[in-house]
Amino acid sequence: MANKPSIPKGTRDFGPDEMAKRNYIFDTIKRVYALYGFQQIETPSMETLQTLMGKYGEEGDKLLFKILNSGDYLKAVSDDELKERNTLKMQTKLCEKGLRYDLTVPFARYVVMHRDELQLPFKRYQIQPVWRADRPQKGRYREFYQCDADVVGSDSLLNEVELMQIIDTVFTDFGIRVQIKINNRKILTGIAEVIGEKEKIVDITVAIDKLDKIGLDNVNEELRGNGISEEAIEKLQPIIKLEGTNEEKLDVIAEVLKESETGLKGVEETRFILDNLKNSGLNNEIQLDLTLARGLNYYTGAIFEVKALDVQIGSITGGGRYDNLTGIFGMPGISGVGISFGADRIYDVLNTLNLYPKESVQGTQLLFINFGEKETAYCLPIVTAARKAGIRTEMFPDKAKMKKQMNYANAKNIGYVALVGETEIQQGKIMLKNMTTGEQELVTPEELINKI
Amino acid sequence: MANKPSIPKGTRDFGPDEMAKRNYIFDTIKRVYALYGFQQIETPSMETLQTLMGKYGEEGDKLLFKILNSGDYLKAVSDDELKERNTLKMQTKLCEKGLRYDLTVPFARYVVMHRDELQLPFKRYQIQPVWRADRPQKGRYREFYQCDADVVGSDSLLNEVELMQIIDTVFTDFGIRVQIKINNRKILTGIAEVIGEKEKIVDITVAIDKLDKIGLDNVNEELRGNGISEEAIEKLQPIIKLEGTNEEKLDVIAEVLKESETGLKGVEETRFILDNLKNSGLNNEIQLDLTLARGLNYYTGAIFEVKALDVQIGSITGGGRYDNLTGIFGMPGISGVGISFGADRIYDVLNTLNLYPKESVQGTQLLFINFGEKETAYCLPIVTAARKAGIRTEMFPDKAKMKKQMNYANAKNIGYVALVGETEIQQGKIMLKNMTTGEQELVTPEELINKI
Repeated sequence: MANKPSIPKGTRDFGPDEMAKRNYIFDTIKRVYALYGFQQIETPSMETLQTLMGKYGEEGDKLLFKILNSGDYLKAVSDDELKERNTLKMQTKLCEKGLRYDLTVPFARYVVMHRDELQLPFKRYQIQPVWRADRPQKGRYREFYQCDADVVGSDSLLNEVELMQIIDTVFTDFGIRVQIKINNRKILTGIAEVIGEKEKIVDITVAIDKLDKIGLDNVNEELRGNGISEEAIEKLQPIIKLEGTNEEKLDVIAEVLKESETGLKGVEETRFILDNLKNSGLNNEIQLDLTLARGLNYYTGAIFEVKALDVQIGSITGGGRYDNLTGIFGMPGISGVGISFGADRIYDVLNTLNLYPKESVQGTQLLFINFGEKETAYCLPIVTAARKAGIRTEMFPDKAKMKKQMNYANAKNIGYVALVGETEIQQGKIMLKNMTTGEQELVTPEELINKI
Repeated sequence: MANKPSIPKGTRDFGPDEMAKRNYIFDTIKRVYALYGFQQIETPSMETLQTLMGKYGEEGDKLLFKILNSGDYLKAVSDDELKERNTLKMQTKLCEKGLRYDLTVPFARYVVMHRDELQLPFKRYQIQPVWRADRPQKGRYREFYQCDADVVGSDSLLNEVELMQIIDTVFTDFGIRVQIKINNRKILTGIAEVIGEKEKIVDITVAIDKLDKIGLDNVNEELRGNGISEEAIEKLQPIIKLEGTNEEKLDVIAEVLKESETGLKGVEETRFILDNLKNSGLNNEIQLDLTLARGLNYYTGAIFEVKALDVQIGSITGGGRYDNLTGIFGMPGISGVGISFGADRIYDVLNTLNLYPKESVQGTQLLFINFGEKETAYCLPIVTAARKAGIRTEMFPDKAKMKKQMNYANAKNIGYVALVGETEIQQGKIMLKNMTTGEQELVTPEELINKI
């Protein structure tokens, strides 16, 4: 009856080495979030389909994993409906729950359900898996972790300032050099207003983004191809050719947007954020980038994105300010701002640059070789004492061949091996082998603990 | 379109306080597991139904949450089958994946799939949620965490010894006084052999368990009622009346089981475990209890269970030795032994006894009150310095009423509040308020950091 086991496509097992590295990533992010006063919450893996459906667009609805109702799951389906085989229509009768698709909608649901217990502003972080029935491909999984932090219930731009500091601190701790890009949805709205092409803001940012690659003439050509008027293109020139420091850029933009109240608001917000970051000792560069337009329909103020400087990979962190997070659940007027670290990509970057600190991936520090029952009985109290001293210690459980036990130590990358035979027992000592240098040394139990 | 949101029954949101407590529990268990050389792994939330079905009995199959296939999930179902409405038969055509039901079957699947990478013995721990479509009731959830540690690929009883030490260390760290109960399946088999009632071993242990409550005569009466012969009951008397130290009990059992090879093996195993624990400085009592028979069909050697001494609640940890974990997946001959901490019950015990260390549930340590833009600008570098020194610090983001900001500090149980107005700025100082004592003190930024 044995079948060769497998796991669902798009999912992963994480072995000990991968887990040690992932824990290092999550623990670093958690420590920094806590340092800024964010508190962790967790929500259930399953949400009602009523909570999930219609929040991610039609495509998102399809990508939700739905859970078959228990018991007679066909009871709400009529014979005619069965015959019709309209799977899309029928699924909400077969299923009332789904797996969460992101952490944002469950968070909105959480805020609404717990509104009376929450002290606003509420600074929460959440690190949990999400599931999407996407076609699996390299770097895209059907189960993956998100690491979100959001502040809700505060309009203050100091929140944006802090989130930039969090990003800078996390990547400094990782040793990853990054560029933090910032933009503001209000500036983009202002540009669209000023050139009278409100609908075309996405086309415009896409075209501007190509300046380095295709040159000014071709950018203008592309804008014309998108039906942007000559007058608008003329007005756009200072924006397309935008260069210099963030301050210089903001001056140019303010000049272009002088007729747009919203646009000037965006300039002012960006100035506030950048000014307040000036004296906070950021280790990474923060750059105003007008082509940054992620989730345009979602964000309403600042937009952020982080790129690694030394590895070619997409955005490794992103976020922004949004309004009305909880409006979908009948609680309007709650503004929020948040960021999300891309754990899987950060994992790849740390791997590529070999940046994991040795301690973070080190498991067992000391292995006692098993020479038999008498030797084991002598060693057990020493093993216990080593653990009491906080040393991660193992005794090989079986009296196996020496080679097998040493292979075990090597495979687990154990730093020290303790060898205790008859001679050592008579002397009340331990032969301690440093597995890195190969050196051996006869030590007392106390010396052993002090040494490691 | 607003709907009042809810979560699926049997699931839970964990807010900041609950999460801090849960993290304390998980972190303690993880630290101890690591101290003993166990390595963490994670497996996907979804497994194929082929992996899950048939592993938990017929009832278990029903309690699996099954995930509706994406796309045309009806394509493998004929019109006749639809008409038949045999939901049980049809479900494996609608679903090929399910949510994991425990951590043991996924672990067995993991060992088989990764057999070539694993260095045996493999000491793994795993802390992840599992899902069961059980009827929700007090203390029983449809999503809950399991915290398992297992050693596979080693027959040595030193593993049992270490698992007992782990249990003792974890509950000592928690400050929960426990009784660790131990038994051995081979002893139970031996008893059944000796009295010639192999089939009735469960009835026998259930009856013996009632001795304290109903007295010897009634126990014997119950045994008779279960069809146990007078001769067998006679032989059982020393077992029923078993008293004294573990050693005394083992002597009596060894005498009763002298004809049973298996029984004597169980006595020997138990002696080895208890003898080796004698000098290891256990803080909690370990007691041989023949009525302990959890998962009888599953375990093949030692069986453990832990009860809290100061709170009336079921078993808070359990485990034992099993053979042939991976046989179901075509890899026979792998023996293992494991334990599982019941996180939800431990949570309740710690709550009841109020045993959470203050540090473990303390979030933000220091809050800067926001008096306006000028004051904020003065404070920001101090906030940054405090965080650099590792102090979990917040600046209230909005210039809200003093009362609101102080309420925020109280609600988040923040230890210190920093007040900086015009006077303090002129002096280059900070008014630091200890929220526990109410004392206020004028300090320099350096003094502030040293103080907290």
